[in-house]
Amino acid sequence: MGKVLGIFDSGLGGLTVLDSLLGYCDYDRIVYFGDTERVPYGAHKKTTILEYAKQDVRFLLSKGVDEIIVACATVTSNAIGELKQAFEVPIIGIIDAAVEKACKSTINGNIGVIATKASISSNVYEKSINKILPSAKVFNKACPLFVPLIEYGFTHEGVEVSYKACEYYLKDLKENNIDTLILGCTHYPLLKPQIVNVLGENVKLIDVGVALQEKKYQTKTTKLPRIDFYVSNEPEKFTIEMSKFISNNLFIKNSTVSLIHIEDY
Amino acid sequence: MGKVLGIFDSGLGGLTVLDSLLGYCDYDRIVYFGDTERVPYGAHKKTTILEYAKQDVRFLLSKGVDEIIVACATVTSNAIGELKQAFEVPIIGIIDAAVEKACKSTINGNIGVIATKASISSNVYEKSINKILPSAKVFNKACPLFVPLIEYGFTHEGVEVSYKACEYYLKDLKENNIDTLILGCTHYPLLKPQIVNVLGENVKLIDVGVALQEKKYQTKTTKLPRIDFYVSNEPEKFTIEMSKFISNNLFIKNSTVSLIHIEDY
Repeated sequence: MGKVLGIFDSGLGGLTVLDSLLGYCDYDRIVYFGDTERVPYGAHKKTTILEYAKQDVRFLLSKGVDEIIVACATVTSNAIGELKQAFEVPIIGIIDAAVEKACKSTINGNIGVIATKASISSNVYEKSINKILPSAKVFNKACPLFVPLIEYGFTHEGVEVSYKACEYYLKDLKENNIDTLILGCTHYPLLKPQIVNVLGENVKLIDVGVALQEKKYQTKTTKLPRIDFYVSNEPEKFTIEMSKFISNNLFIKNSTVSLIHIEDY
Repeated sequence: MGKVLGIFDSGLGGLTVLDSLLGYCDYDRIVYFGDTERVPYGAHKKTTILEYAKQDVRFLLSKGVDEIIVACATVTSNAIGELKQAFEVPIIGIIDAAVEKACKSTINGNIGVIATKASISSNVYEKSINKILPSAKVFNKACPLFVPLIEYGFTHEGVEVSYKACEYYLKDLKENNIDTLILGCTHYPLLKPQIVNVLGENVKLIDVGVALQEKKYQTKTTKLPRIDFYVSNEPEKFTIEMSKFISNNLFIKNSTVSLIHIEDY
């Protein structure tokens, strides 16, 4: 048995992290869990987020994973410390790499962060940025409608709704002259075209999945790991939607998508 | 002790039902529970919806209610039968009155229904309409983004996002020449201005709360019942938001909003 990587998210968003790692991570098998029944996590309170995340980790452990990536910024920002304490398996969050990359990228020191309400309330991004770059000015904006927009397909149909939502949420960041924007939720890379449309090409967008790959999974590999997907609701929908998130569909050609009852874990 | 009415919904939406009843329902006390921690119910599977609804009913019973209105179309369409079987207290759904009113209202027989995914999948509206009016043509449209739009305040700020979402979801119904539209989710009356903007003034909008009042609570009363609100998350936000839903704020002037842990029920 080779090494097995576990990845989880509240829904589809974590697939952007998986996508960034494919071709770079040397695992024989990857187990992905998307909690499509309880998405979005970002509007929940901290205790609920921790409770859900623990179930997600226990499920992945039951599938024999050796390492777990928390491909959800809401869980990383609200519960990563507690998860690391509660479990022995290595648990990797997705915020640090993105913050480091943003601090290297900014020239004018004005960094924007967009994320779920729970991530923004945790203040983790701002604290982490100012630890590395005390002079940076951080402009936070919670964008609670973005996850529903993406989960309900407004990146591919009815795109004008996503454009309007981006204009609404990003206008303050634009006025504050940010030169770097952390997409602080793994769903958000799917809205890149709309975000660029509002902010212009000159604002550098930091994708947490890409930043994690660049920091921790640098070796290219031609290995095609077996990928087992599990979801807690609507496996058919997940099967259709996931191809939008994965750039090279060769990787998911032989994968399976199964339904589980996450409350049992 | 006078009569106590219980009302519950997944979040804020049920307040439109409460609003319709105020001034008509002769109760001494009303207990409202909004499951703001687990909103939206409409994307969940049937078993989860039933489980959540049972907890909601048990909570209201613990507050001594004599009668319960399920001010949530998702619960009514997916779980009302099971709830009536499981509990002895009278439990009132919100679909029948709206369907009867729509069947009386239509002239050309083309009735539109907009609701959550779970309500539309249950097919309850279509079946109930065709039982009364077998010749009616029913055009269903699930509008999963509407509840997040309303819960995140896009009825009052960033309204252009709501307009675009209405245009997107309602275009097929418009083309199908409906003359009556059931707003099949208690949240949706908050989007009336945007819906009218797309469909025009000639399409009759059926508000489930108003239909329930007209059918079951016809006697006007000047009594101001005491209203106790309970929510499972963000009571401060609920306190601010609820005034948008209640036309006569005199009714909620002396009410209280308390936070509870619904999983305990």
